[in-house]
Amino acid sequence: MAAVDDRRTKLNPDESPLAIICGGGSLPFAVADAARRAGWTVILFAIEGWADTAAVARYQHHWVGLGQFGRFRRLARAAGCREVVCIGTVLRPSVSTLRPDWATVRLLPRLYRLFRGGDDHLLSGLGRIFEEHGFHLLGAHEIAPDILVPAGALGRREPSERDREDIARGFALIAAMGPFDVGQAAVIADRRVLAVEAAEGTDAMLERIGELRRLGRIRSPAGVGVLVKAPKPEQDRRLDLPSIGPTTIERTVAAGLGGVAVRAGEVIIVQPVAVAAAADQAGIFVVGVAGDPVAGA
Amino acid sequence: MAAVDDRRTKLNPDESPLAIICGGGSLPFAVADAARRAGWTVILFAIEGWADTAAVARYQHHWVGLGQFGRFRRLARAAGCREVVCIGTVLRPSVSTLRPDWATVRLLPRLYRLFRGGDDHLLSGLGRIFEEHGFHLLGAHEIAPDILVPAGALGRREPSERDREDIARGFALIAAMGPFDVGQAAVIADRRVLAVEAAEGTDAMLERIGELRRLGRIRSPAGVGVLVKAPKPEQDRRLDLPSIGPTTIERTVAAGLGGVAVRAGEVIIVQPVAVAAAADQAGIFVVGVAGDPVAGA
Repeated sequence: MAAVDDRRTKLNPDESPLAIICGGGSLPFAVADAARRAGWTVILFAIEGWADTAAVARYQHHWVGLGQFGRFRRLARAAGCREVVCIGTVLRPSVSTLRPDWATVRLLPRLYRLFRGGDDHLLSGLGRIFEEHGFHLLGAHEIAPDILVPAGALGRREPSERDREDIARGFALIAAMGPFDVGQAAVIADRRVLAVEAAEGTDAMLERIGELRRLGRIRSPAGVGVLVKAPKPEQDRRLDLPSIGPTTIERTVAAGLGGVAVRAGEVIIVQPVAVAAAADQAGIFVVGVAGDPVAGA
Repeated sequence: MAAVDDRRTKLNPDESPLAIICGGGSLPFAVADAARRAGWTVILFAIEGWADTAAVARYQHHWVGLGQFGRFRRLARAAGCREVVCIGTVLRPSVSTLRPDWATVRLLPRLYRLFRGGDDHLLSGLGRIFEEHGFHLLGAHEIAPDILVPAGALGRREPSERDREDIARGFALIAAMGPFDVGQAAVIADRRVLAVEAAEGTDAMLERIGELRRLGRIRSPAGVGVLVKAPKPEQDRRLDLPSIGPTTIERTVAAGLGGVAVRAGEVIIVQPVAVAAAADQAGIFVVGVAGDPVAGA
């Protein structure tokens, strides 16, 4: 914990620019904008093949190939960056898509060991590598706390007593699976676990619920059931917090569920106003649930 | 445990016929044939809408509607049945497909409570109801122990050291999810959990692996990864043991995995010779792994 406190008190003491290593999706730009509002100068290190070209062009940026740690280190140091945020999608790359430079090649034996574990293992290992090279790795939520889901209902609708039972069961399930480094989401309806997310991701999991419902394999009535998302208990939160956005609401509605529950302060929300509006229009709830000291730690 | 021992020593003491409540799939007939070989007279109670009409016709049988416990009880008593085996697929029925008779109606409040839980909850509850009405509920494996996967490799291929790590991780994951009454299967590749089975069933889970691979979301090489199946730790084994058969092998191969591992003596195998032949032809392993006293209990 000392390291974390240390990082927090040192946040941008000398106005050094913030390096944002930028993968796919819209989340990196939401974080970049929030960082600018908080007074940071932002430099994007956009990952080739993943970052959105048009959006990247709106910011000071460099393109880096996946695996080019040497190039990143050189450019980031030249720009005077010390604080680094990694954000956005980079699916587990195959070795053939990596374009390692020499700095990365020297790290390869260590990276190989990291890749053999699950996501947590990989991510916390990468975090340590950044620290060893003199960068301060920050979580997007440390730069832009307003991107986290707050406690309470986001729209008008509140979960029912029955929903709350499902929500508690979902959080407990995700906590129990923590040591196995599985996904960060599950669907529970009437206390029954309908789906557990692993490699397929939340959207594909929700799509499956709709399909199973059409096939008659899920017969809980429409409007019953909750998508639950929470970080895995042992996850390095600087690197991979789960997120929700308007698409999540769309797919939750299509899956016939009653709402979405996430750990308050531990899940990123993209376009919160659009999320609340979509939830209200569909009549589902979206709720941030404060963690208890054990399950939410 | 006394009840179990009692049942075992009383197996067919007076040559009463065995009642097989028969859902969908080919498993009920494999069990019926095995029971006949073991000397039982067999009467099928085929569930309308689920049991295979043509196959049922080859045995002495009665048709019963889903939820017609009174009809079953009357017919089974008239035939002198005391031992009952429930086997075959009946997906969780919607209330509208139930055709309860009066005996079932009297049980409805209790059934409602059972249905609100997960599968385990439902199945062990149904088991108790049979016992209370004077039937001895047996597991298919108690009638036909040769339908269980034995310890060791079924075909020529053995799992590698790396496979064994994945297998151990899979069994531990299924054990950890036990209290949540999730599925009985998972796919692990190189220590990473690729999929967890819930409402979709094993076949759909394996199909997902193939799809994710085509989409580039799973990049472990073909031949790496294991389908792991085991009963949930708190499962009532008289009612719902997991099973594998030739289709499982087909789908495991299509998913690009290296093999199948199940708990020896706790998973049913349909057509073991065909399973071994298909595994050998595809070059994958199928192995029964003896449980340790904790995880396999």
